[in-house]
Amino acid sequence: MTYCCAILVREGLVMIADTRTNAGIDNVSTYRKLHMFNAPGERVMMIASAGNLSATQSILHLLREGFPGGENGEIEKLTDARTMFDGAQMIGRAIRRVHLLEGEAYQQSGVSFELSLLFGGQVGDDPMRLFLIYAAGNFIECGRDAPYFQIGEYKYGKPVLDRAAVFETDIYDCLKVALVSMDSTMRSNIGVGLPIDIALSRRDSLELEVDQRIDHTEPYFHDLRDRWSTALRQAHLGIPRPPYGRRN
Amino acid sequence: MTYCCAILVREGLVMIADTRTNAGIDNVSTYRKLHMFNAPGERVMMIASAGNLSATQSILHLLREGFPGGENGEIEKLTDARTMFDGAQMIGRAIRRVHLLEGEAYQQSGVSFELSLLFGGQVGDDPMRLFLIYAAGNFIECGRDAPYFQIGEYKYGKPVLDRAAVFETDIYDCLKVALVSMDSTMRSNIGVGLPIDIALSRRDSLELEVDQRIDHTEPYFHDLRDRWSTALRQAHLGIPRPPYGRRN
Repeated sequence: MTYCCAILVREGLVMIADTRTNAGIDNVSTYRKLHMFNAPGERVMMIASAGNLSATQSILHLLREGFPGGENGEIEKLTDARTMFDGAQMIGRAIRRVHLLEGEAYQQSGVSFELSLLFGGQVGDDPMRLFLIYAAGNFIECGRDAPYFQIGEYKYGKPVLDRAAVFETDIYDCLKVALVSMDSTMRSNIGVGLPIDIALSRRDSLELEVDQRIDHTEPYFHDLRDRWSTALRQAHLGIPRPPYGRRN
Repeated sequence: MTYCCAILVREGLVMIADTRTNAGIDNVSTYRKLHMFNAPGERVMMIASAGNLSATQSILHLLREGFPGGENGEIEKLTDARTMFDGAQMIGRAIRRVHLLEGEAYQQSGVSFELSLLFGGQVGDDPMRLFLIYAAGNFIECGRDAPYFQIGEYKYGKPVLDRAAVFETDIYDCLKVALVSMDSTMRSNIGVGLPIDIALSRRDSLELEVDQRIDHTEPYFHDLRDRWSTALRQAHLGIPRPPYGRRN
């Protein structure tokens, strides 16, 4: 399993990803799922990946090393993209190329070609953008009304996002909410686990302001988990008991 | 979609179910999913249902009207069950009977025979029990370590249960937590909706202390939703901002 989330607000972009992978419950490992294609001052580009690990790794290799994705078969790399939209299209082509090369073999082995990617960042003067890219290479862009995307095991961590992440939310509050959302997911699903990777880029900065791995020794995250648990317990204690029934 | 939850604690049993059904997103309706087989002083028996509506309705009809489920084909009704375990086995037989009669036609129509039931209550001197019954008619019993079961769209509402529902929790706090869990689910998934049905039975009382439908006019639930939203927002505001990055 996987849980990744990206929030795009007025001030900028936050991305978070866990690192747990499993091929069956008895084959659990740790792989980075938050990948950078940055050049400070020129561009910030981040991809978070969920789904089939070999497929997502192949796609990332193609995007990094170049692949014949152009209309006339020219070699292209993600770092050549002039805009984020351009980059999202290129990622779509890389996905379809891996599917073309390996899809039939997947099918013969009964393995599903399931994956989804979050692609966020900014290139030069082009606005900061966030895309959710599907296994067919098609994609949607994040808007202001619901300024976040999630991939992987998204349901446990969605209620807090729905309530606390709006376009005007302070970007460090967004990072905090993303960490709470990740904590909720890890608490209820052992397929999502530490360490987690976090990144934050402010609009028009063209660089990462946060780029950090959080493991179990990290005191802030430990404290956040405790405080959130306590707050959740207190939150429902603060609500009056239901007035139904005879005791009330 | 559906969301139902049952919590069995030291003081007794709480069950909650929404009423929204849909056959496609453009065909939404309201059906009761919390069903009673009670006789005050003799037994409390509740079934909450998720999954294929025609299958669960057929199963409930068999259990109410009687079906040839006995080893020698005797007619049996759920209200004949001498213990909750006996009742759970009988429900399993009713599920398998519907599958026997209709399963092949389901398959031919490409409709999956998917369902799950929560069965909770108490019969006479037999202890209060809670079972989760699967589509094959097999079942598991709820234990003290994780004193609740969920069926249907369970993930959104699980984090609060994991944190707030333990065996020693006050039964009206359990009802409140169940309502919060339902609210979290409805907030994030429009396939789960009002009105909701709630029921509460105290251990050894052999009757319902709460048996109520909550719709959008119900002031307590309205207040609970507001308070929970506010509390969630305040809960994360009360956590210090992350110490990562240059701004901190």
